[in-house]
Amino acid sequence: METLNVSLGERSYPIYIKQGAMFDASLFSQHIKGTKVVIVTNDTLAPIFATEVAELLSQYDVATVTIPDGEAYKTLASYEHIMSFLLSGNYGRDVTLIALGGGVIGDVTGFVAATYQRGVDFIQVPTTLLSQVDSSVGGKTAVNHPLGKNMIGAFYQPKAVIIDIDSLSSLPDREFSAGMAEVIKYGILGDIQLFEYLEVNLAEISAKVPSVLSYIIKQCCQNKADIVAQDEKESGVRALLNLGHTFGHAIEAEMGYGNWLHGEAVAVGMVQASELAKLRGWLSDADVNRIVALNDAFSLPSKGPAQMSYEQYIPHMKKDKKVQAQTIRFVLPKHLGEAILVTDVTESELKLILQ
Amino acid sequence: METLNVSLGERSYPIYIKQGAMFDASLFSQHIKGTKVVIVTNDTLAPIFATEVAELLSQYDVATVTIPDGEAYKTLASYEHIMSFLLSGNYGRDVTLIALGGGVIGDVTGFVAATYQRGVDFIQVPTTLLSQVDSSVGGKTAVNHPLGKNMIGAFYQPKAVIIDIDSLSSLPDREFSAGMAEVIKYGILGDIQLFEYLEVNLAEISAKVPSVLSYIIKQCCQNKADIVAQDEKESGVRALLNLGHTFGHAIEAEMGYGNWLHGEAVAVGMVQASELAKLRGWLSDADVNRIVALNDAFSLPSKGPAQMSYEQYIPHMKKDKKVQAQTIRFVLPKHLGEAILVTDVTESELKLILQ
Repeated sequence: METLNVSLGERSYPIYIKQGAMFDASLFSQHIKGTKVVIVTNDTLAPIFATEVAELLSQYDVATVTIPDGEAYKTLASYEHIMSFLLSGNYGRDVTLIALGGGVIGDVTGFVAATYQRGVDFIQVPTTLLSQVDSSVGGKTAVNHPLGKNMIGAFYQPKAVIIDIDSLSSLPDREFSAGMAEVIKYGILGDIQLFEYLEVNLAEISAKVPSVLSYIIKQCCQNKADIVAQDEKESGVRALLNLGHTFGHAIEAEMGYGNWLHGEAVAVGMVQASELAKLRGWLSDADVNRIVALNDAFSLPSKGPAQMSYEQYIPHMKKDKKVQAQTIRFVLPKHLGEAILVTDVTESELKLILQ
Repeated sequence: METLNVSLGERSYPIYIKQGAMFDASLFSQHIKGTKVVIVTNDTLAPIFATEVAELLSQYDVATVTIPDGEAYKTLASYEHIMSFLLSGNYGRDVTLIALGGGVIGDVTGFVAATYQRGVDFIQVPTTLLSQVDSSVGGKTAVNHPLGKNMIGAFYQPKAVIIDIDSLSSLPDREFSAGMAEVIKYGILGDIQLFEYLEVNLAEISAKVPSVLSYIIKQCCQNKADIVAQDEKESGVRALLNLGHTFGHAIEAEMGYGNWLHGEAVAVGMVQASELAKLRGWLSDADVNRIVALNDAFSLPSKGPAQMSYEQYIPHMKKDKKVQAQTIRFVLPKHLGEAILVTDVTESELKLILQ
């Protein structure tokens, strides 16, 4: 088992990575304080995992609440549904929530945990590659609003993150690929060794060889843990993790959440950010091609929706949470393996990339 | 001007108390980082105060959003209304919210501030006695849920609390009295000098003599600031501030929020807690009579609703956020000027008090 630590003082917590982690009761029990546990999951995963996890934790008083599967349900309505479940069951501040699922479940459950009776404990059990390498670590919780993604939420850290490599075997290929977009992102923005490891292990990754998956998940979590420890609330360096996300969020929002998967939109956004960097002479054609080649290898798109015009990107990008004083802030690769935050991207640069 | 400090490390903030504080632009401007300000208030106060405050801050880009007046609007629906206003206006993380109103406005605005784009700055400008002496200080933010009061919220500190004594001159008598219940509470739980000051200044308080109001507000804020600095997230001593609230919340919930004012329910709850303390030999008849006499002096009730039975109290009290492992926790006066947290109150004791 790999164990990493997210160093945040009294809010520090471990990340456990291994095959079968989800069914190792001791990983849970050391992070459950009271006697009551509520598993939050979705309708698709409930029959696959939740019953077994509930049985595993039979020493506790365990209940399960579900929301429908999909980004379309990352809403205040789902949040309120879970809140009502907890209140109907008279759960107190000593309940521990277990977020069992992908990014939607993790983000919604985390926001419930942050705000149920002003805060209760929760454990992240991410079951998708995307949530394992990114959203389950770092304490960003949120729901979407019709006017913007992740616009309502809180910074709130879990007590532990339990990553079971085996859960990826049942993950649909398209979602696995979407997760690889975030893996590639870590390579571009801060870990050239990871980037090169991906290039030489394409077949092993696609075959989901456990030791290879374990390595890349560990590297991503380590990268993220290091950045979050420096800047928990995204006042500085943490914004670099949004490489590809300013463009990506615009694509997701314009196309309707869930039509493009988050990772697919980020894959395109990374290429668009790289094209911007190329305009500035920071990346070469060859660099951009290496990124596109990785996208290709995992059947990820590198071009935005054909029907989406420059004019359609801009209003979404102006709603990005990184916007300050009306300036859109972009994360651009300075070279492969290092990214910087840029505030002086011009309209003409953007038009060149997006038209 | 009185200036107190709530000592919470990097989350520390000042409390300013003076006549006309609400119209002193410098008190605001030193706590506004960006260029955009949104005043959150209610329909009743908007025409009285909000226009003038907005003019005062004309160096900023100021907008005002309102919700209806009253506890019935301390809901997720009001929260979502304010969120939608902010998103429609493309406000970023650099917005500063100003909560201009009583406890409902302060609590809802604080919860919006805690969770809009995962957290933006806000300033409390409490306009009722209850919010000035209690809810605006300490960072408890929340909305109600049909199944319980303040069940959805966060601990999130303001950047400053600006208390204008003059705002009390337009406060209805019933609301002023409700605020006095919380003032009396501070006396019972930790400040016998304040308790005695109230007893000898009844006429001056009712006449709203500014120097007398300023003194009691300062004492309450100082008491609260000291307790919050020791225990920001209510894992220990902060629970003492809930003297009278376990009973009080049950009355409010059973009677329908807003029918009994919070302070009225707390006034009864303090007497019920004192009766429990008397059963245990901690308070004398004379002590309880002094509390009832203060309630009487401010036209506050000391008896619960005649129609409310023991059986109707219990389910509400079991939903109290202080419940742990199914045990209802009560704050009881050990003597006048000191309270303790008690977990061993028996059913027969409760029946004696409530039947």
